[in-house]
Amino acid sequence: MAMRSICRVISAAKIAEPFQQEIKSNVAKLGYSPVLRAFLANSDPSAKEYADWTAKTATGLGITFDLQQIKREELEAAILDANKNPKVNGIMNYWPVFDNVMEDTRVQQQVDPLKDVEGFSPVFIRNLYDNVRFFDPPANLIKSILPATPLALVKALEHLAVYNPLLEEGSRLYGKTITIVNRSEIVGRPLAALCANDGATVYSVDVTGIRKYTRDRLKLERHRFEEVEMTVEQAAQLSDVVICGVPSPAYKFPSASLKDGAIAINFSSAKNFDKDTVKEHASIYVPSIGKVTILMLLRNLLRLSQNQHNLAVVSQSSVSAKSAMDVRASL
Amino acid sequence: MAMRSICRVISAAKIAEPFQQEIKSNVAKLGYSPVLRAFLANSDPSAKEYADWTAKTATGLGITFDLQQIKREELEAAILDANKNPKVNGIMNYWPVFDNVMEDTRVQQQVDPLKDVEGFSPVFIRNLYDNVRFFDPPANLIKSILPATPLALVKALEHLAVYNPLLEEGSRLYGKTITIVNRSEIVGRPLAALCANDGATVYSVDVTGIRKYTRDRLKLERHRFEEVEMTVEQAAQLSDVVICGVPSPAYKFPSASLKDGAIAINFSSAKNFDKDTVKEHASIYVPSIGKVTILMLLRNLLRLSQNQHNLAVVSQSSVSAKSAMDVRASL
Repeated sequence: MAMRSICRVISAAKIAEPFQQEIKSNVAKLGYSPVLRAFLANSDPSAKEYADWTAKTATGLGITFDLQQIKREELEAAILDANKNPKVNGIMNYWPVFDNVMEDTRVQQQVDPLKDVEGFSPVFIRNLYDNVRFFDPPANLIKSILPATPLALVKALEHLAVYNPLLEEGSRLYGKTITIVNRSEIVGRPLAALCANDGATVYSVDVTGIRKYTRDRLKLERHRFEEVEMTVEQAAQLSDVVICGVPSPAYKFPSASLKDGAIAINFSSAKNFDKDTVKEHASIYVPSIGKVTILMLLRNLLRLSQNQHNLAVVSQSSVSAKSAMDVRASL
Repeated sequence: MAMRSICRVISAAKIAEPFQQEIKSNVAKLGYSPVLRAFLANSDPSAKEYADWTAKTATGLGITFDLQQIKREELEAAILDANKNPKVNGIMNYWPVFDNVMEDTRVQQQVDPLKDVEGFSPVFIRNLYDNVRFFDPPANLIKSILPATPLALVKALEHLAVYNPLLEEGSRLYGKTITIVNRSEIVGRPLAALCANDGATVYSVDVTGIRKYTRDRLKLERHRFEEVEMTVEQAAQLSDVVICGVPSPAYKFPSASLKDGAIAINFSSAKNFDKDTVKEHASIYVPSIGKVTILMLLRNLLRLSQNQHNLAVVSQSSVSAKSAMDVRASL
């Protein structure tokens, strides 16, 4: 009999599909075309390409993508202006811009959290780590924003049925083990926190070593971590999913150490899995995630537009005024 | 904050629900009420109870459940009569009847495979082990029948999202590890074969030791097995699912050895999991499977009625006559 193909390759476009419809229908409910102002202040051709793709996607969904190519010395002032401009619902920028990450971080943090589609504002990151979804429980009108790439990877895990829909929301990864090779503050570390907060056991790998993140059989309200003595191969052998995002063409994940039938996901532009070896060992391989990330940026824009609307409504009600002020202050 | 409940208990009734509707609609398509003749030839009160429950379920779905209480010395003749009776679409019996399992087996094997709702006919078991679903590929009109309890447990695994719907049919357990405590010929062993044929790594446990069943990363068309030196606790630590069916009130599975967030399923009338300990370690606990088994018996009756119809149709066509005869002969 014919040899069965043992690995299914799933594209980011496929994972992104349901969000196209969701966003389109939410734009219609909003009753206006939300405006995303994006700044391109570097000369990276791949950033330009990504911006063009975002423009095309946004336009198709009824969103106004307002790309402004500016000099980097104008960026901070442009962000502060956009914060105050009532016609702008969301703000993003293509990074890196300056020659050091600390300057990029400070400038990024000038974005008002009410308009931060990238989800990097410290208040959002705090909520993410603390496993908090809304600013105003129990009313839950003002949603915390998740950073776009980690959110895209979570949506991929949902699409791939790693999240078990039978479990209670907030613990649907309980029983699953996930290795994440990348512990950057913008993707790997928040992703580890999101997955562990949802119940998974996470092995987080970088050049300094391996950490294990867990909620201890859901006994904790949020994850904790410990440093563990093990190899990446040992972590892989225990893992249902391996997610790789090492930004170096020299790096290849040791795919032969995958558990038979594991799921492999790459989010690095340098492909971290050798495509032949990974297909021998994995049941599912997702070679990239970029198109999902774009949809998550636009989805965040919708959530921010809704937050802006809800905050305006509760501010006008005298009864709720104080709680609205509390919300605003906590941002 | 309040302690989160960490284990969801899922009843057999819940898992059985979609099959109620499926069977009802297939009875309607059939255009007549299929007849299941059941023999009760022992004096086990739990068999009577099970028969009464089956009668109630069958009636509600438009199926004629024809229960005959007879003496055990009449059983074999009654089966042979039912084989020939064109009004009877399916035959089953409540076991055990005689004082030795070999006599029970021989009498059971008097049931014509065309009417065997229990799915114990050697030709069905051969197909199950050989990973064959139809008697007449590629036409696929005559379906092989699966034994009801192993099939009920497979349906439970589908309901619990252990089967990954994104993978190709026939390999949707690839990447999953399942421990089965019970290696009887009527449940544990065929279940191990079904799961391993669908791509899982299975640890099959009984008093004689532990076997590992696998298709070697789907390279094999059907499973193979090897005896492995490990403890049941070690097998549990590797397993996403533990299925227990030890018919002894004295036996308790060591639930503390479950992998955090694993799924635990019991199919023994003697509950094999201590209900408090299992809930501390499992994400999902299924305490029984009997109601799903009843639905599977009735579902098998529908498949047999369809097989009988299809076989009659192909036999009347001169072109297909030979292949129909081949099918009949292979039963």
